[in-house]
Amino acid sequence: MSDFSFVNAHHSPLGAFASFTLGFPGANGGFDLERAQPPCEEVFVGLESADEENVFCALPFTREARKDESARFSSAHSEIQEIGDRIRLETFAAEQIRREFGIATDTWHAGDLRFSLITPALAAPDPDTADEASLKAALVPAIYAEIEVDNRAGRRARRVAFGYIGNDPYRGMRHITGAGFVGVGQGREVALMTDAPGAWSGIGFHPALILGEAHAENRVWALGQCGLLVAEAPAGQITRFRYAIAFHRAGIVTTGLDTEYLYNRWFKNVESAGAFALARFEAAQAEAAAHDARLAQSKLSQAQRLMLAHATRAYVGSTQLLEHEGRPLWVVNEGEYRMMNTFDLTVDHLFHELALHPWAVRNVLELYLARYSYVDQIALPGQPAVPGGLSFTHDMGVANAFSPIGHSSYERGGLAGCFSYMTQEQLCNWVLCAGVYIESQGDEAWLAAQAGTLADCLESLVLRDHPDAAQRDGVMNADSGRCLGGAEITTYDSLDTSLGQSRANTYLAGKCWAAYLILERLFERLGDAVRSTQSATQARRCADTLVAAVAPDGSLPALLEPGSAGFHSRIIPAIEGLAYPWFGGRRDACEPDGPYGDYVRVLARHLDAVLKPGICLFPDGSWKLSSSSDNSWLSKIYLCQFVAREILALPASATAQADEAHAAWLSDPRNAFWSWSDQIEAGVAIGSKYYPRGVTATLWLGERAA
Amino acid sequence: MSDFSFVNAHHSPLGAFASFTLGFPGANGGFDLERAQPPCEEVFVGLESADEENVFCALPFTREARKDESARFSSAHSEIQEIGDRIRLETFAAEQIRREFGIATDTWHAGDLRFSLITPALAAPDPDTADEASLKAALVPAIYAEIEVDNRAGRRARRVAFGYIGNDPYRGMRHITGAGFVGVGQGREVALMTDAPGAWSGIGFHPALILGEAHAENRVWALGQCGLLVAEAPAGQITRFRYAIAFHRAGIVTTGLDTEYLYNRWFKNVESAGAFALARFEAAQAEAAAHDARLAQSKLSQAQRLMLAHATRAYVGSTQLLEHEGRPLWVVNEGEYRMMNTFDLTVDHLFHELALHPWAVRNVLELYLARYSYVDQIALPGQPAVPGGLSFTHDMGVANAFSPIGHSSYERGGLAGCFSYMTQEQLCNWVLCAGVYIESQGDEAWLAAQAGTLADCLESLVLRDHPDAAQRDGVMNADSGRCLGGAEITTYDSLDTSLGQSRANTYLAGKCWAAYLILERLFERLGDAVRSTQSATQARRCADTLVAAVAPDGSLPALLEPGSAGFHSRIIPAIEGLAYPWFGGRRDACEPDGPYGDYVRVLARHLDAVLKPGICLFPDGSWKLSSSSDNSWLSKIYLCQFVAREILALPASATAQADEAHAAWLSDPRNAFWSWSDQIEAGVAIGSKYYPRGVTATLWLGERAA
Repeated sequence: MSDFSFVNAHHSPLGAFASFTLGFPGANGGFDLERAQPPCEEVFVGLESADEENVFCALPFTREARKDESARFSSAHSEIQEIGDRIRLETFAAEQIRREFGIATDTWHAGDLRFSLITPALAAPDPDTADEASLKAALVPAIYAEIEVDNRAGRRARRVAFGYIGNDPYRGMRHITGAGFVGVGQGREVALMTDAPGAWSGIGFHPALILGEAHAENRVWALGQCGLLVAEAPAGQITRFRYAIAFHRAGIVTTGLDTEYLYNRWFKNVESAGAFALARFEAAQAEAAAHDARLAQSKLSQAQRLMLAHATRAYVGSTQLLEHEGRPLWVVNEGEYRMMNTFDLTVDHLFHELALHPWAVRNVLELYLARYSYVDQIALPGQPAVPGGLSFTHDMGVANAFSPIGHSSYERGGLAGCFSYMTQEQLCNWVLCAGVYIESQGDEAWLAAQAGTLADCLESLVLRDHPDAAQRDGVMNADSGRCLGGAEITTYDSLDTSLGQSRANTYLAGKCWAAYLILERLFERLGDAVRSTQSATQARRCADTLVAAVAPDGSLPALLEPGSAGFHSRIIPAIEGLAYPWFGGRRDACEPDGPYGDYVRVLARHLDAVLKPGICLFPDGSWKLSSSSDNSWLSKIYLCQFVAREILALPASATAQADEAHAAWLSDPRNAFWSWSDQIEAGVAIGSKYYPRGVTATLWLGERAA
Repeated sequence: MSDFSFVNAHHSPLGAFASFTLGFPGANGGFDLERAQPPCEEVFVGLESADEENVFCALPFTREARKDESARFSSAHSEIQEIGDRIRLETFAAEQIRREFGIATDTWHAGDLRFSLITPALAAPDPDTADEASLKAALVPAIYAEIEVDNRAGRRARRVAFGYIGNDPYRGMRHITGAGFVGVGQGREVALMTDAPGAWSGIGFHPALILGEAHAENRVWALGQCGLLVAEAPAGQITRFRYAIAFHRAGIVTTGLDTEYLYNRWFKNVESAGAFALARFEAAQAEAAAHDARLAQSKLSQAQRLMLAHATRAYVGSTQLLEHEGRPLWVVNEGEYRMMNTFDLTVDHLFHELALHPWAVRNVLELYLARYSYVDQIALPGQPAVPGGLSFTHDMGVANAFSPIGHSSYERGGLAGCFSYMTQEQLCNWVLCAGVYIESQGDEAWLAAQAGTLADCLESLVLRDHPDAAQRDGVMNADSGRCLGGAEITTYDSLDTSLGQSRANTYLAGKCWAAYLILERLFERLGDAVRSTQSATQARRCADTLVAAVAPDGSLPALLEPGSAGFHSRIIPAIEGLAYPWFGGRRDACEPDGPYGDYVRVLARHLDAVLKPGICLFPDGSWKLSSSSDNSWLSKIYLCQFVAREILALPASATAQADEAHAAWLSDPRNAFWSWSDQIEAGVAIGSKYYPRGVTATLWLGERAA
């Protein structure tokens, strides 16, 4: 059984680039607003003992040793120490805690305490067309928390405290008061608020100093980075306390392109966001319960459900709905790297976004076209540059800094590995996203508007195959001139050339094939028979090239170049490209007895040949994306699992052991600090941590078996 | 000779709560915007070798071992490593560096490099009345830097780079471009800009990665927290490069009371501030040079000049000119504690502020009256509470969070030490600040407007002496009811009761005496003979009480209560109160043969008696404020030195050795990270670090001997 009891997870509003991260023991959680990692704050959720006054037992999200700032003020602070010494703080032991980890409700049970973080906003309606009430509910920059105290057996009221010790280097802790609520928070940016009757806010150097204070007059005190909300659970009953955890940034928050958070339309400050959340608490809780129930009722295994919930949380925490000149602007930030709308992630988020908020896909595609596209020169290896065509940048900037028009933050010339250009891959990605978006939404108007761009994309794809039409084989052969003599890479930037090199790459060839198939269909719908036929020709060439490359054991080489190291590698993502025709209106092409049956059967045999220990399976059954690298990416595994099971008919039972192993990667104490992480090398997260990309797992819900 | 070569110092615009802190070797400087400590960023100021290309020598403000983020992106990053490996980075050795530490220009000379940080804005005209041009020049949230490269002997151009490795947890590094400048910075908040011809901005994981890149096309890259501005110094000449270091926060920046930085009137973003600074570079440099020259030409010793320059820098970096509903609002933040306008600091900043921007004093007094005053009950020890009177809070809030009306962030009841109420002291402080402000500025209209408040202050002072008129002795006897049974403290909160206890305290009695003298004069000017006389009576009582308390050796006890521990302590600040009548129009009262000659002579004898090793001198000659505590506060030493020399006629030569010792405290490597610090315990800074209060040293410039 997978065990996610002590895993950090995002708890996020949608589109606020924010998370109240919690789950990994110690000072490892707290308020994350636009950060690149879990914030490492202490979070205090403590209940006074039924047996003994002034003894509190807390969830294990604090430091073991008290950090006491009072020494900074005075070396003689015995009086203040005495106040804190009135309180004894204990921590629930691991075995006293039971966690229910849902996609929208995350609950810790410990003794008489239940603590739930509630994050119902998984989706938002189209901000261009939806009514204000739905938008506010979906986009309020706040999440919800509930504490339940079972004091039925108690003979006196017991205090319950929820708060945190902030570590913001700029902003201090403050009291928040308003009509019907109290709160604590830092600056104008984050707030923890409650409408619990009689609750009060306390600030101090540590929780015991607040809880040990005898004089109510001193609650106005405001020194120290610890803020608590304290309430009382009466004897003889179960009491529930409601909280809002709110985030807010006003004004322009980005550079390069001036944008504000769209939620500023309705929420002028953090208090108004928190108050709104408190007012719709019950509705939010019901929405969250419905999300949880849907996932619980799916046929997914427990390991799959945990991973899907976990990955979805990380995705939501990375989302950022901005507004530029009155128009919504959607960003998904790239986890610990915070690159914006990294295109090779967008294409992986595609399936999730189309299921939940398809307008976001269109929004990103339009901005790529308007600002983050370019026309390059191209060159065959060792040849002079010739005119190339349209493509798209790797990303739109990093950490709220939009990059200049036509440039990513990531790509540089002169390289053949990590940080090189991804011109070919991002060109495919625009076509694939556009095609699947159009197919799923039936957005004919948008298709018509993109006719010229799609033609440019086809021309660019074809030239990158080969500038000389006679030598085209459907696979990329020419690198972008932006590489300055280097070579393009794929999204697998930190893998060896088995997946990292673009040229002659079997993974990327699969995505080219998919792009051509989709273009064939789109040009047909546009009535452009010439381009439709040209697309079909290229798809056929690509499939033929790949079919011809099958090795004697039935597997495909990772790289098609016989002399290369990658020629001897074997990769699972050879099958990845099948996902796009599947959702892009070309399921015909995915049938083993369809028009591309030869290629599809080759892929099925390939998968069968490589999914073996020592090739593309680790000893514990987990998937190894490349036979020649120990670095395996969970998001891509999830996606390829979908392709394998749903398109290539691998039985679900064949991946059950792998799922357990993959879930164990995430809950491994070496990795669990980082919420959901993508790059796992031999069981250890080495990069792409705190990462949104795992929502490829959303595909699982669409499997016939699920 | 005092040596400040490797001391961190603030380099700040006025009123921006900002500093580019630099001077202590290692990753200990950088952009401080609203922080509570030096920002611990690496600052890179490097010049390419004359002898060898791709070899740079830098000032010692970087880490010894390179921190390379590239490993977070890929474990296989040899190509990127190779780019960095093209560059060899060396650091100037300590003995190669000569620093000129002025009050407005701070210059490091090393090899062919000169690097200057220029901070001319020590004062601003009254924002209510001054013309816009003067205000913009004084309040632009930017400082200035200049690099000079002597490449006269060089045979080729040499690159020079200035930048930093940021550590902001929220904002990433970005390129800045505009008309006539380039820059790097983080978010919308901080920027380093230059107008040097041909300069370019680079971003990377570390300086060598930027400097080693061969392709100019790659300068658009934007990953990594290192940002550099790179320019070239042609061969055969001396070249100067100009930089602006700008800070900016837009929108509302405080809570409790909504305020914006006043500079937003003219500077909408960080680029506009930096561009404005570049445009007035020469004027700024000339202003700074004039400030430096004035200090250099004073008769102060080298140690005194260094300390005054250092303290002034820390003060300027703590200043914050805000705007609330169209009206300026002046804040001085309390160093590492960031409490706002801490009143017992305001009274120490008074002399500096009246010399440079007296409107700020009035501004703070008015806000204290409007929001941070209260009327309390009072109680004699062991007696029930009776009506008290008007007083003022300790501060107005902390770290941009204004506290509620009538409350400080700091004070709490139930204590007798640190964090207790300072009701009596802050009441004195309002009267003293008001009186000295009125006297120095001749602001009769303001005096007239405060008549009622001054009457309330007098009433409150008198009641705190004793509720029963017959038992009044001029000295505080009643504690505020807000103490909840505890006892009031003085500003010396972390000292023992020799200075910490308010009641019967000789230090505070001196300030009460001063307050009564000032009230006597103010009521006389207001034509209120009754209150003028009552004030005089109280002043006389106070002086009589103190004169009567003289011990056989001629010294005064720290506490007047015979049974107390403090009765046997001896304190230098017994003389502190003399400063206020001196500047408050009552020099008559400070004369040894004047109306209070008996008291003044007692103080002179007291000083003579205690300024001895083992009493109030440390073995090295430095001043020990209390005979019973090793914790000595530099700001108060500076103030008492002024009183001792200027009012009590202690020869300047008697403090020369102490000044050297005090300067050595600040330059001690155990303390030098913290810029200017106040609380020094046996030579080590233990609190009140990175602190504004040392501008009491400004008083030295007014001494007849200076």
